[in-house]
Amino acid sequence: MSSNPVSSKSTAATAHALWQKQPKANAELFALTYGALVGELLRDLEDSSQVAAELDRMGHSVGVRCMEEVLAKLALQAAEDGSTRTFGESTDVLKVAFRMFFGIAVEATTVKRDENGTSSYSIKFAENPLDIFVELPPERQDLEYSQLLAGMLRGMLEMLQFDCSVKVVQTVLAGNETNELSVELKQVLQEGAGEDYQEE
Amino acid sequence: MSSNPVSSKSTAATAHALWQKQPKANAELFALTYGALVGELLRDLEDSSQVAAELDRMGHSVGVRCMEEVLAKLALQAAEDGSTRTFGESTDVLKVAFRMFFGIAVEATTVKRDENGTSSYSIKFAENPLDIFVELPPERQDLEYSQLLAGMLRGMLEMLQFDCSVKVVQTVLAGNETNELSVELKQVLQEGAGEDYQEE
Repeated sequence: MSSNPVSSKSTAATAHALWQKQPKANAELFALTYGALVGELLRDLEDSSQVAAELDRMGHSVGVRCMEEVLAKLALQAAEDGSTRTFGESTDVLKVAFRMFFGIAVEATTVKRDENGTSSYSIKFAENPLDIFVELPPERQDLEYSQLLAGMLRGMLEMLQFDCSVKVVQTVLAGNETNELSVELKQVLQEGAGEDYQEE
Repeated sequence: MSSNPVSSKSTAATAHALWQKQPKANAELFALTYGALVGELLRDLEDSSQVAAELDRMGHSVGVRCMEEVLAKLALQAAEDGSTRTFGESTDVLKVAFRMFFGIAVEATTVKRDENGTSSYSIKFAENPLDIFVELPPERQDLEYSQLLAGMLRGMLEMLQFDCSVKVVQTVLAGNETNELSVELKQVLQEGAGEDYQEE
């Protein structure tokens, strides 16, 4: 309740308050319905990579809608209104979005720059709300079941004017210790937005 | 908090308590994801009735899973364990299930018997959590967008040993004043279960 000057703490508090105010659905029903969606795609499409591509596409459109709402709720100016936000600062907004839409806390690594000047960071989270009932059968071990999340992240970042490539790096479902999505910045979509990311 | 002898009141209290304890997801994200599922089916299938049939099928399997959990949470014996429950009494369990999985209150009409001896009732609810963002385009006015609910209801009732035909009768989406699903009993699946429904 006390106002905390540390940005990450106040972000968490804001995110929690927003989550509390959101209309709720049952997380298990959500996971089951998502499972029905994945099952439908598996019946219609040949291989796992096609299923993942579809999930990614759907996630993108869901992510755009979600971020519109996050920005409205945060009463932030969207980037197209002239406000700027660095690529690194986008993680603060993503934390709010994951809390607000999935009710989970995510961690973000700091931005790294590779030898080509490409910036990237990772988003990590312990619980994945999509896969709580899932065990992949042996013949579908190659399926990126939660690709929707990567697509959502891509859509959300696009709304922040960051054109990114998002990949699922590791998942608890596949036996890893945590869930990790990697985010690589391809380009800043609009002048002004993200222009400071060079200085990070 | 007081124990109330009126069954419908205590059912509502039980349902509310169970809903409070459920893990939550964001209702808007759920609706958007369901929309992605329907959109996927629309792309793959020719006509609206095929889409509805698929949604019904998925709903059935989701409904079975949901009712398993309701019965476990209520610590009721499932019908196959030898306990009996009349067809009319099934509405009490459905009220709990709708509250627990959708967070909404539903009303049930009393059981009617037609001239052939077929028993039926209706489930009515004001808010439909699936269609909050939906407006059907002119060429899809014939789509039963929330057919998943009818399938779920069918699956839930099957778990209570009632083989039913469930239809969407009216929806707010289509301009009606309320949402209504009609439930018609086809047969009681197991001897013992529902044998009292004759006396209602």
